[in-house]
Amino acid sequence: MQNYLLGEAVFSLSNGYLGIRGSFEEGLSGIGNKTIPGTYLNGFYESVPIPHAERGFAYALNSDTMLNVTDGKQINLFLGEERVCLNEGKVLDYSRQLNLKEGVLTRTFTWRSPHGRDIKVTAKRLVSLIFKNLFAIQYQLEPVNFNDTISLHSVINGAVDNHVHEEEDPRFSASLGSLGLSVQEILSLDTMATIISKTSRSGQTMAASMENRLFCDGTYSLDTEKTSHTASITYRVDAVPGLTICLEKYIAYYTSRDYSETKLSSLSSDLVSRAKVIGFEALLKKQTRKLKHFWQIAAIDIEGDPDAKSGVSFNLFHLRQAAGGNKNTGIAAKGLTSEGYDGHYFWDTEIFMMPFYTAILPTEARKLLQYRFSTLDQARTRAFELSHPKGALYPWRTIGGEEGSSYYPASTAQYHINAAIAYAICKYTEMTGDYSFTLDYGAEIIFETARLWEDLGAYISRKGDLFCYNEVTGPDEYTALVNNSCYTNLMARWHLNYACETARTMQDNHPDAYDRLAGKIGLEDYEIAAWQEAADKMYIPYDDILKIHPQDDGFLDKKIWDFAKTPYYNYPLLLHYHPLVIYRYQVCKQPDVILAQLLLDDLFPLEQKRRDYQYYEPITTHDSSLSPAIFSTAASELGFYEDAYKFFLLAARLDIDNRYKNTHHGIHLANMAGSWLAMVYGFGGMRTTGGNLRFNPYLPQKWQGYRFRIIFRGALLEIKVSAKTVIYNLLRGDTINFKHVEENLSLNKGEYAIRDLHKEPLNIF
Amino acid sequence: MQNYLLGEAVFSLSNGYLGIRGSFEEGLSGIGNKTIPGTYLNGFYESVPIPHAERGFAYALNSDTMLNVTDGKQINLFLGEERVCLNEGKVLDYSRQLNLKEGVLTRTFTWRSPHGRDIKVTAKRLVSLIFKNLFAIQYQLEPVNFNDTISLHSVINGAVDNHVHEEEDPRFSASLGSLGLSVQEILSLDTMATIISKTSRSGQTMAASMENRLFCDGTYSLDTEKTSHTASITYRVDAVPGLTICLEKYIAYYTSRDYSETKLSSLSSDLVSRAKVIGFEALLKKQTRKLKHFWQIAAIDIEGDPDAKSGVSFNLFHLRQAAGGNKNTGIAAKGLTSEGYDGHYFWDTEIFMMPFYTAILPTEARKLLQYRFSTLDQARTRAFELSHPKGALYPWRTIGGEEGSSYYPASTAQYHINAAIAYAICKYTEMTGDYSFTLDYGAEIIFETARLWEDLGAYISRKGDLFCYNEVTGPDEYTALVNNSCYTNLMARWHLNYACETARTMQDNHPDAYDRLAGKIGLEDYEIAAWQEAADKMYIPYDDILKIHPQDDGFLDKKIWDFAKTPYYNYPLLLHYHPLVIYRYQVCKQPDVILAQLLLDDLFPLEQKRRDYQYYEPITTHDSSLSPAIFSTAASELGFYEDAYKFFLLAARLDIDNRYKNTHHGIHLANMAGSWLAMVYGFGGMRTTGGNLRFNPYLPQKWQGYRFRIIFRGALLEIKVSAKTVIYNLLRGDTINFKHVEENLSLNKGEYAIRDLHKEPLNIF
Repeated sequence: MQNYLLGEAVFSLSNGYLGIRGSFEEGLSGIGNKTIPGTYLNGFYESVPIPHAERGFAYALNSDTMLNVTDGKQINLFLGEERVCLNEGKVLDYSRQLNLKEGVLTRTFTWRSPHGRDIKVTAKRLVSLIFKNLFAIQYQLEPVNFNDTISLHSVINGAVDNHVHEEEDPRFSASLGSLGLSVQEILSLDTMATIISKTSRSGQTMAASMENRLFCDGTYSLDTEKTSHTASITYRVDAVPGLTICLEKYIAYYTSRDYSETKLSSLSSDLVSRAKVIGFEALLKKQTRKLKHFWQIAAIDIEGDPDAKSGVSFNLFHLRQAAGGNKNTGIAAKGLTSEGYDGHYFWDTEIFMMPFYTAILPTEARKLLQYRFSTLDQARTRAFELSHPKGALYPWRTIGGEEGSSYYPASTAQYHINAAIAYAICKYTEMTGDYSFTLDYGAEIIFETARLWEDLGAYISRKGDLFCYNEVTGPDEYTALVNNSCYTNLMARWHLNYACETARTMQDNHPDAYDRLAGKIGLEDYEIAAWQEAADKMYIPYDDILKIHPQDDGFLDKKIWDFAKTPYYNYPLLLHYHPLVIYRYQVCKQPDVILAQLLLDDLFPLEQKRRDYQYYEPITTHDSSLSPAIFSTAASELGFYEDAYKFFLLAARLDIDNRYKNTHHGIHLANMAGSWLAMVYGFGGMRTTGGNLRFNPYLPQKWQGYRFRIIFRGALLEIKVSAKTVIYNLLRGDTINFKHVEENLSLNKGEYAIRDLHKEPLNIF
Repeated sequence: MQNYLLGEAVFSLSNGYLGIRGSFEEGLSGIGNKTIPGTYLNGFYESVPIPHAERGFAYALNSDTMLNVTDGKQINLFLGEERVCLNEGKVLDYSRQLNLKEGVLTRTFTWRSPHGRDIKVTAKRLVSLIFKNLFAIQYQLEPVNFNDTISLHSVINGAVDNHVHEEEDPRFSASLGSLGLSVQEILSLDTMATIISKTSRSGQTMAASMENRLFCDGTYSLDTEKTSHTASITYRVDAVPGLTICLEKYIAYYTSRDYSETKLSSLSSDLVSRAKVIGFEALLKKQTRKLKHFWQIAAIDIEGDPDAKSGVSFNLFHLRQAAGGNKNTGIAAKGLTSEGYDGHYFWDTEIFMMPFYTAILPTEARKLLQYRFSTLDQARTRAFELSHPKGALYPWRTIGGEEGSSYYPASTAQYHINAAIAYAICKYTEMTGDYSFTLDYGAEIIFETARLWEDLGAYISRKGDLFCYNEVTGPDEYTALVNNSCYTNLMARWHLNYACETARTMQDNHPDAYDRLAGKIGLEDYEIAAWQEAADKMYIPYDDILKIHPQDDGFLDKKIWDFAKTPYYNYPLLLHYHPLVIYRYQVCKQPDVILAQLLLDDLFPLEQKRRDYQYYEPITTHDSSLSPAIFSTAASELGFYEDAYKFFLLAARLDIDNRYKNTHHGIHLANMAGSWLAMVYGFGGMRTTGGNLRFNPYLPQKWQGYRFRIIFRGALLEIKVSAKTVIYNLLRGDTINFKHVEENLSLNKGEYAIRDLHKEPLNIF
């Protein structure tokens, strides 16, 4: 039986707030859990108790699970008595196209019924980038060879539930039982209907409205109907061959997370009414204009490699689709394309996606950071639960801010989430020059999370009285609960230093803001001194024999995984070996030390990075989709050009080609952003370390050239690389200062600079 | 509201197969989950799916949960319309006595009803040590001051379920939802009734029958009644003051784990009929005779310390009660006294209880080892699931043999369960001289589990190419997933050596048996050579600075727990700190290195053991009930007499005084056996290392003397210690050879030897 989940994820539409999977309007028959006709609202979730057969103190109690909500896309189609179902009858022709420029999904097919009736259908849909709460469908029909009644049964259905599956894959949703919203009320008037629903535990309310409009030259009748959980309208058209029938359907969603509960119904019905007046075509035009602006900045051009180009474009489009929530929402690992990972937000946002948003959509980047600020109180509570008298610990997976991880060794123990958030604030500030975020929100996050680092670590006499972190987990989830995770210690040191620097900068330049904040959180000077001392005395594992950074204190005392004896079908290892087996060996799921060296790239000589890369890459399975893009980016810097291209192409085409065989769980947004990183930070050699913009580009052998653009402190800079040269072109903004390799460049409005490419990228640090 | 759970556990009766909690026949009213009127059948369980919110490969899928079964003890008592309930009305006098010599529980009380009617009740019960399937009650009444109808409503109730609780304590049962047996059929005839019930997932069937007999000089009538899940008989007696009424009730249980399903009903009805003919008093006499034999061997006499004596006697009684299952059953951590730990068997049996059973009830010891043999196939399967191509891994917690642990870091990672079982076989063999167990069953266990040790470890170049174990957990559960757990490596080395020795002994002395077994399990000589090499090259962590054995590779790199800042109410730590907090520090729940040094006591100089003890004891919270007895035993050997006595007394009185505040979860059988260990191996200084029996006794300062007996290779030896001397008296058997300190002694039938006590015990190794 065909599995529709992959196509539904890949063809998902979203505007960052509302997500609609690419399931079919007319439905499928009898295929059980091979389809998820999902509709998701970012930040709208049920709080689901986490079952712990063996309970432990301060275990996460609830998981904020993103809900599949009221389904508005259903248009059941009947030719006489025969229901149109693509998995029955005969499909004569079929195409489905996601137009990245217009943000519209078009599906056309001709279908022959079991009784031989042929019908042509063209179904278009968009999730509006203008109206965050709106989804619109244009459903066109043409009967080919029959005269009979065609019925279009347009439904809004409140009886939905999350997907129930039996997959053993921990990366899919937890399937913890029915989460269904309960329908509170159904209102309907003419061609419009609204369903009000409530969650049972998280106390959230939503309204969903539909409005319908039929365009048809022939004669038709209409009926409306309500059940306990649906409202529907049925159009019955007297069809003749060649007749054109077009149903436009508008669906709006509003929730109590953003608006007063009493207004939800009128907000959603007003919006669909308004949309009906505007019409599908006009909505599509607005959409296209909006996307044009996006592509003007985000587009990446690659000459001589259509696969790479289409992969990256697809990825950029999904990144655009994932952005646009509000200050109460982050971006889920799978965006709004699936229930994978229960719709949770992870550190992926800060470490993988934020560089893209910061450089391309900086206002979205700021909103994402504000989301973290909005949950700072919960992070404080979590730190307290974990016996830290002060400070904040961000949850490893969450929507509403509460820790929702059921397996703490690979979640709560990843304290480095704290550093990821501080790092994203720093990089946002460097890239945008917007210090107001730090003053208003960022410093409070940075200080509170620094407090946790200080309380978590300890000066260990056997480590020369250096500051150590025990019993933590770094990014590589094939090792857990270690002492002195190299990544963790490096990032904690950076974080503590940055907190001290932020405190000093504020004390010097914004003393009032500093005093206000220090008063609010009771911050004392001795604390800052303690942060500085911890940073200065941070223990960083280093092995004098191999001259590499061990991933942790015990890592090199393990045997290297026997890759030669591991058959290809045993990857990813996590689906074929118990954690006790995996943890026992030197084997990495993803970059760990290598990632730290990319994030803190000015701290390591190139030769050191090369040795570390050459040690870790061969023992990395890349089982995590977070892996290839980072290895590509690192390989570019280190001159490992084959690796750089190989891993880049994997990242670029990971979802579009379903390379990881699990895109049916949803797209991999962090990897999509990673493919941008591999282009811009990798091939382009961009860095912003210390707030100084630099480039050190090279051209992959296979290519004739490439071009990307970034926004740096309001200026739009184009970087165009061809066989021998790079052209820096200031497209917008008054001036920009940056380095080409080691040369300082300054461009004013409209200026550009041409420089020769270095044959080998240099170590510019 | 009073909590009855503690008393119910302490006053539980059992014969190792059938367990009845000390709840009241007449019941209690309206006290919800403060009572568990539990009835348990060893080995009768439901297979309960373990919920894993985040799934992992080869995670344990089901937990064998011991079921609370059909309740036969209910005798509802009415004075006119008033129901007798001890938590209502007024209790004028009350006593409850557990007679350790007779194995009978007697409860007497006088109760005044709200209307002023007084009644005297004497309720006796026994769980037969002769008839494993039988439970009997003698319920005597005497109306004091009223004339009215007294109704005795004797019930057998199939609608029972496991206890539902909201305790956060992981040590209690998991409370995974309703596990109820479903009643299949109820048969009744006159005063007898039988209920047949089935489990839904584990496919087990049981029958429970009751038979009643009323003794009464007055007039009475009787009625019988059946509901969908109960059968009952009601006696209505015309009561006058001083009339004696006595109801004898017999309840029998049979299950499909031991008998054919079709016979269960007749077996149980036959047994209660037979019991009715025998009568309660005669059953009690048989019981007393049986127990007399037990006490003749097991009794421990202590002069000058009644608290110690009564504590130890109570413990010995419960150990006697816990023994007596069959070859398909082990002994649960809580015996059959509660649903704590879901009735699971752990390594506790082998390491803590087996020395007692081996020395006092050797046939029971043999059955316990046979139980492990009966689940060897499941242990092979489990090893395979954990990617070991050969060998066997015993489950950390189980009933039927399947791993039932939901938290693998403190369960499956405790591979040392394998060594515990091999060790118990070795000690059983040394003590009993019964090599037939090894030939028929033991060697197969020893070899298969040795295979796992060989596959689990690896020669690590950074550890001098020594054989290491990574990612394992030792006995101390306040540290998990470490490299080179000292206990684990020591026990693995012992195990591998013992496997080689067993192979050599069999090859030399029992070549046919060896060939048969090697053929059956495909054992090759190169494997035995590999075991020997791994043992010879085993890495044992040692710290040259502190001159102690670190608990594991990373242990000393952690900070010592801040005990000064830990308030008393934060113990046990596991109920007040997240594992990430506890694991981060040097802090032990229980002995780990110290236990290994006790089990392998000839490997370490006394000075070494003293240093280790002095390092670990101060950082051990003794939060585990497995802790005090071992520390006492070690302290005795090392001359730390105050510790030895202090920890012994804690162990001796742990349940009788509810010192750990959780005896309401059930008694702590391993600790009870530990109190025997602390007496015999501690104060008595007994060892059997290498099959050589030795004693090195001393007298705790507070005592005038003590006496214990043990069976060694069929001979019954009494060891009587007084102020200055020890008398060794061969009570039964032809001859016995052993050492007093360093002197070889040999006693023949009826002989005894008197020796002076050493002032300080010597290091005899």
